[in-house]
Amino acid sequence: MAIERQHPVAGQAANSRAEPDALLPAQPPGGSIPDAPCTLESLAQTVSCLRKPADIQAYLQDASGLAAAGLPAMVLRPDSVEQVVQIVRACHQEGRRLTIQGGRSGLAGGAVPDEGDVVLALERLDRVEEFDTVGGTITVQAGMILENLCALVEARGWYFPLDLGARGSCQIGGNVATNAGGNRVLRYGTTRELVLGLEVVLADGTLMTMLNKGLKNNTGLDLKHLFIGTEGTLGVITRVVLRLFPRPERRYSALAAVSGLDQVARLLQLARARLPELSSFEVMWRNYLAAAGQVLQKTPPFESRYPICVLLETEGRDTPEAAAALEGFLGELLESGEVLDAIIPHSQEQAAMLWKFRDAIGEILRTMQPYVAFDIGIPLQKMDAFIEVACAGLARLEPNARNLLFGHLGDGNLHLSTGPHAPENLLAVEELVYREVERVGGSISAEHGIGRIKKPFLKHSRGAAERALMQQVKRALDGDSGLNRHRVIDA
Amino acid sequence: MAIERQHPVAGQAANSRAEPDALLPAQPPGGSIPDAPCTLESLAQTVSCLRKPADIQAYLQDASGLAAAGLPAMVLRPDSVEQVVQIVRACHQEGRRLTIQGGRSGLAGGAVPDEGDVVLALERLDRVEEFDTVGGTITVQAGMILENLCALVEARGWYFPLDLGARGSCQIGGNVATNAGGNRVLRYGTTRELVLGLEVVLADGTLMTMLNKGLKNNTGLDLKHLFIGTEGTLGVITRVVLRLFPRPERRYSALAAVSGLDQVARLLQLARARLPELSSFEVMWRNYLAAAGQVLQKTPPFESRYPICVLLETEGRDTPEAAAALEGFLGELLESGEVLDAIIPHSQEQAAMLWKFRDAIGEILRTMQPYVAFDIGIPLQKMDAFIEVACAGLARLEPNARNLLFGHLGDGNLHLSTGPHAPENLLAVEELVYREVERVGGSISAEHGIGRIKKPFLKHSRGAAERALMQQVKRALDGDSGLNRHRVIDA
Repeated sequence: MAIERQHPVAGQAANSRAEPDALLPAQPPGGSIPDAPCTLESLAQTVSCLRKPADIQAYLQDASGLAAAGLPAMVLRPDSVEQVVQIVRACHQEGRRLTIQGGRSGLAGGAVPDEGDVVLALERLDRVEEFDTVGGTITVQAGMILENLCALVEARGWYFPLDLGARGSCQIGGNVATNAGGNRVLRYGTTRELVLGLEVVLADGTLMTMLNKGLKNNTGLDLKHLFIGTEGTLGVITRVVLRLFPRPERRYSALAAVSGLDQVARLLQLARARLPELSSFEVMWRNYLAAAGQVLQKTPPFESRYPICVLLETEGRDTPEAAAALEGFLGELLESGEVLDAIIPHSQEQAAMLWKFRDAIGEILRTMQPYVAFDIGIPLQKMDAFIEVACAGLARLEPNARNLLFGHLGDGNLHLSTGPHAPENLLAVEELVYREVERVGGSISAEHGIGRIKKPFLKHSRGAAERALMQQVKRALDGDSGLNRHRVIDA
Repeated sequence: MAIERQHPVAGQAANSRAEPDALLPAQPPGGSIPDAPCTLESLAQTVSCLRKPADIQAYLQDASGLAAAGLPAMVLRPDSVEQVVQIVRACHQEGRRLTIQGGRSGLAGGAVPDEGDVVLALERLDRVEEFDTVGGTITVQAGMILENLCALVEARGWYFPLDLGARGSCQIGGNVATNAGGNRVLRYGTTRELVLGLEVVLADGTLMTMLNKGLKNNTGLDLKHLFIGTEGTLGVITRVVLRLFPRPERRYSALAAVSGLDQVARLLQLARARLPELSSFEVMWRNYLAAAGQVLQKTPPFESRYPICVLLETEGRDTPEAAAALEGFLGELLESGEVLDAIIPHSQEQAAMLWKFRDAIGEILRTMQPYVAFDIGIPLQKMDAFIEVACAGLARLEPNARNLLFGHLGDGNLHLSTGPHAPENLLAVEELVYREVERVGGSISAEHGIGRIKKPFLKHSRGAAERALMQQVKRALDGDSGLNRHRVIDA
């Protein structure tokens, strides 16, 4: 019937320098940081430092495709929080600009350095500092790779639910800095909801350690929210305390066919009410599935008979009752006509194939170049109207472009991919879509962030008063704009 | 077996000026605010204004017991966002200080005005502006009473899960400003996690409208977190967009007896893994239950045979399977010895009685005067040690004081109530406990906030760098300290 989906296995944690067997006390914050300032050049002698063009190739671009126009001065790879403090302090004193890098898997160009920047790459800061298996929290350094973190946690019966395509290269510090979303936001929230505590190095090198471990802590301004989702423009994240969940025993998937977005909304409401273990609700339109079928060389589900398909996933126990829940739910809705058709996978391969259709977007995009892939948030009640107007506008710009739609609609996140367009029209494509997003009160970036690439369009999601306040906060925390300059908003 | 607990009924919403039957567009932000500044005295002619001592008695204290030392200049009760903007702007221009009031149910003295203050009471700002029954969100004005809001939402098949003792008088704007917690944080999070969008009037009267409705929105600094939990020190909340859930059909309660905190931790982990609909996990120590039995004139559950009892609640469907889940879960743990005893209520009265024990703290405290009632957050793994040291210290101060313990331990929130103490010792009691909280890295306020009363103790939960940054943000947003001066932190 339903089967367990692939997820990181415990063995992958072997790469990490984790010490999961003991409750290690966190290092005393800032305890061993010498007060005497070091110069950047003296630090370049003691901290791993790359300067040769051949050595720093990997540090010049990120997954957005954007690449540095000129070379950074150096790439520093500290292996302790103390080294991070010293680097940030030295840059502050010498007026050098820092580009902060995690796994460089971002899609908004945020990790791409400017010419002459000091690149602060956190990849060596990848240790587990405390695994509290009683309270269900883990304290890790910012450079730990998400997949290793998940595997390590699962090996001890716990679960960290954040999951996204870049799991094998993205780092938890980058996930926090960009407030990563992914496939399970509906049940567990975005990264923000999974972070209990943080440690941050401020622009002047001040170390601020807030390794809170409780779900409730009402002691004034919750400062961690200044750093979550601000993409390294207000501080360098060095440690995080994460909230864990009991490890689910199995995952169950199914595909439901519906007639349109009204039925999607109804299905979502019913699924939320009746399936407390619902973790994913992925919506794919007919032409998206057809395109996925082409690149996968497989017949699309239901041979493309239905306008929209929804891929549902639950996570729970490995019991007959749990296995029957999703099937029973869809059975009832088939009878009542609230879904038109359904596939309950009967083998591991069949379930994996459903997810392959969902994950085929990367391969599809390669057939649509030059394209624009939007990651937008649209209120569900306005999505039909938005799609109609946006796609009509895109068709006027380029009648031969395909407009493919899929999304994590459980949280209003729509991915619209359009192409091929004439290169000279790409900016017009963006402006057309973002104006429509603004008109329905949506978000120009549901999960990928602003970085460099969406900075010119920020005004379509954030009003003048908001932008002014964002700027005020940037000035208060990093008036010199030493951290990740030219990203998100200027000081 | 298990029964439905009392919750607000739809009829109570009759008090509200809600219009739940239509999707009303929100008023255009700031559209109709005249640009010409009004003086406070001219506004006092057009806005409901109370000045006579007899009329303003109710506005002089809050539920903390703290009362104003001198009279405020006036109490203004605006009935539109535009009036709030005009009032804040006028106060800013005339150098007047504002005390912002919701339902005055806070326990930290935050709503108590200073002599000469302008009190801004939001009680007339209580309309529903939009109820999106497709996406499951509601947009309401800040003065709406929580109980009315919940009833109105439930009448249409949705659910707003925030629940606390003051539900009949507290206002949603106050809930947001204090990041209220309550009984269901384990499943739904604190108020912060329930807020999608906000509208705020800044200290200079700027109206900032951020009525976001999506779960995902990564467009730079998420400004709403500057105002959630900062108790009106950075802005006046005027509108909120809330996330709704499908309405559960029934609640199921049960009481489990265990031998100590190790078993509590194990029970919590198992309950989180096996009961996806777990909404409450309330822990009561033996002497707390005995004290509750005395004031209720009832025999405590299990005749006080066991060291600790845990009250569990699930919320879900009204089906035989749902009804059997909690009973089956506890049955297994009884067999394995992981719980010592259990009560599955067989009538509505029996379930209500369990919750009466849990809710008896107010009556118990009246028998302990003078007392100190702590609302603290302690990591579960350190709770045993904390309790031992804190109670030993309290016994040295006053051997005859009772130290009663209960808490929402699913989220590390412990309520320790100690008394009677000699009045001259109360400060020493607080200092003793907060020092211990600091030593274990806990929170001096898990859910009640800082306000005026806990302001002197903030340093026990927030380090010097954190306090400096909090101050920097306060200065950037309200340098004159016109909003709720003397609360939380000084500018």
